Amino acid sequence: MSNTPEGWQQRDNALHREFDFADFSAAFAFMTRVAMLAERHGHHPDWSNSWNRVRISLCSHDAGGVVTQRDIDLAHDISALLDAAS
Amino acid sequence: MSNTPEGWQQRDNALHREFDFADFSAAFAFMTRVAMLAERHGHHPDWSNSWNRVRISLCSHDAGGVVTQRDIDLAHDISALLDAAS
Amino acid sequence: MSNTPEGWQQRDNALHREFDFADFSAAFAFMTRVAMLAERHGHHPDWSNSWNRVRISLCSHDAGGVVTQRDIDLAHDISALLDAAS
Amino acid sequence: MSNTPEGWQQRDNALHREFDFADFSAAFAFMTRVAMLAERHGHHPDWSNSWNRVRISLCSHDAGGVVTQRDIDLAHDISALLDAAS
Repeated sequence: MSNTPEGWQQRDNALHREFDFADFSAAFAFMTRVAMLAERHGHHPDWSNSWNRVRISLCSHDAGGVVTQRDIDLAHDISALLDAAS
Repeated sequence: MSNTPEGWQQRDNALHREFDFADFSAAFAFMTRVAMLAERHGHHPDWSNSWNRVRISLCSHDAGGVVTQRDIDLAHDISALLDAAS
Repeated sequence: MSNTPEGWQQRDNALHREFDFADFSAAFAFMTRVAMLAERHGHHPDWSNSWNRVRISLCSHDAGGVVTQRDIDLAHDISALLDAAS
Repeated sequence: MSNTPEGWQQRDNALHREFDFADFSAAFAFMTRVAMLAERHGHHPDWSNSWNRVRISLCSHDAGGVVTQRDIDLAHDISALLDAAS
């Protein structure tokens, strides 16, 4: 799909974004919000964390590992968490 | 409503249950799971925590502060977290 | 003790403060940060949550239920979470 | 260091372990407990999650990226979370 959400990169059939925070506590608080979003959407990220950095990849494994509207919707809601906090 | 979920008490127009864990860490991990459930249901508990103890009350504020099917559904899903862990 | 941290009220032998957030997700993210602080301090709050509101009370149960330096230290670190986010 | 904690593999100057849970909710609850441990230890994992799977790597970046006693201690406490739950 062509409409990659702002701030995300689309490559290797997934949406990718990296987030940096002040420290681990802030990073994990963000992860907790993303976890709640994921459960609400019924759609979950592949993601990693190292100290203050969170890397998120979104793709639809059950659709054959491509980017679908579900990834785009979740990406938008994740991005909205940051807009609300700033 | 009459069908109070097993393990819960219905009084003062709310469902109530108290949960004890080994320590704060286990209690807060449970709270995190309940938080994800609450976001998934779009329905949230009134709850408190002190060390290893979590007290949850469920009522539908927007229905005038009474117990509705939404409370019963959330109570069931909260109870299922414990059954799964034991 | 007399030096109540700014923003907190001291009454009934405990420090009290109420925090309001945009929604449940923001409130629970804050609670997760407080939980990590509590484990780091080895000192835990009595607290409750309803939707976007978090109420925290701090007292030292093991010191006979009074406010000690441990409560003041935790209160300061909790307050610092908000300053950092704003 | 030679004394790799049981259940962990030591390779590429880090301790590694993979954990599988029933679902995302259980996996993220575990991650929340690990996050609290990390803040308590003042030592944080490199980790990733995909649905019910959590992969943790521990090394001491500030010691030049090798395994130190701090990694071994954190690995032990992470392992203890699982023993307590079973």
